[in-house]
Amino acid sequence: MSPDISLIDSALRTWKSNIDRAGKLFGALSESELQREIAPGKNRLLYIWGHLAAVNDALLPLLGVGEKLHPELDAMFLSNPDRSQQKILSGEELKRAWEEINGSLWAAFSKWTPSEWLQKHTSVSDADFTKEPHRNRFTILLGRTSHLAYHLGQANLVV
Amino acid sequence: MSPDISLIDSALRTWKSNIDRAGKLFGALSESELQREIAPGKNRLLYIWGHLAAVNDALLPLLGVGEKLHPELDAMFLSNPDRSQQKILSGEELKRAWEEINGSLWAAFSKWTPSEWLQKHTSVSDADFTKEPHRNRFTILLGRTSHLAYHLGQANLVV
Repeated sequence: MSPDISLIDSALRTWKSNIDRAGKLFGALSESELQREIAPGKNRLLYIWGHLAAVNDALLPLLGVGEKLHPELDAMFLSNPDRSQQKILSGEELKRAWEEINGSLWAAFSKWTPSEWLQKHTSVSDADFTKEPHRNRFTILLGRTSHLAYHLGQANLVV
Repeated sequence: MSPDISLIDSALRTWKSNIDRAGKLFGALSESELQREIAPGKNRLLYIWGHLAAVNDALLPLLGVGEKLHPELDAMFLSNPDRSQQKILSGEELKRAWEEINGSLWAAFSKWTPSEWLQKHTSVSDADFTKEPHRNRFTILLGRTSHLAYHLGQANLVV
């Protein structure tokens, strides 16, 4: 493996390990366990899981992979607070969406070359990217890996 | 920047941003605020901060930078549970240790070349490293960045 391929391999392993941990943690909970709050008065586990799914779904357009697979997650788990929406996915439905989204991301992630990983993401302009070349796909991957870990730490307090 | 240098730059930015967030979050708390538990019956904020400091201190030998700067953190915040030790650092003392440890790590991190980042860490044997070359310094950096984010998510529930 060349150095750049090895560095990407490390990042993909770390992403995958956090995705798998989250899938195992949330996927093992019953519908009623998913109603538990991560702390008194805070978001429910179902909302945290949906939030992670929505953020990952938004990676598809942000990284130029394609359209969102589940744009409906946005209103349920991202742009509105927990308990504000009448219509919300069940744990069962969320599990399917979670697997579908992460499967699509992985299909792209596992075939990008180093120069593809270093391309700009779609919400930065060409001009800004020239000045700030770190606003690339790889930096987004690492940031979203931290985001997964951040919420895993919270969920683990109550499961 | 060559591709490998760019990839490392992204990882260092993500590490630094988590370190800075943790330093700001914990460093702004009074001694009495640091006594707060992250959830009923769970670890105190002081313990979480000390735990992160101890884990980072252990990176110095693990990554071959040098000896631990604060081996006393181990018994206080890593190998024993919260509230089990009589002698424990204050927030003030922990803040100094935190800055010292992360400063030493950064001094090494910011000068390693790609091939130095891909060297094995010190707790894997040569034979195992030949079979599993991902057990390198870079993978450790990414894992410890997730570890920081994991506990930041918990601490943010109560600050």
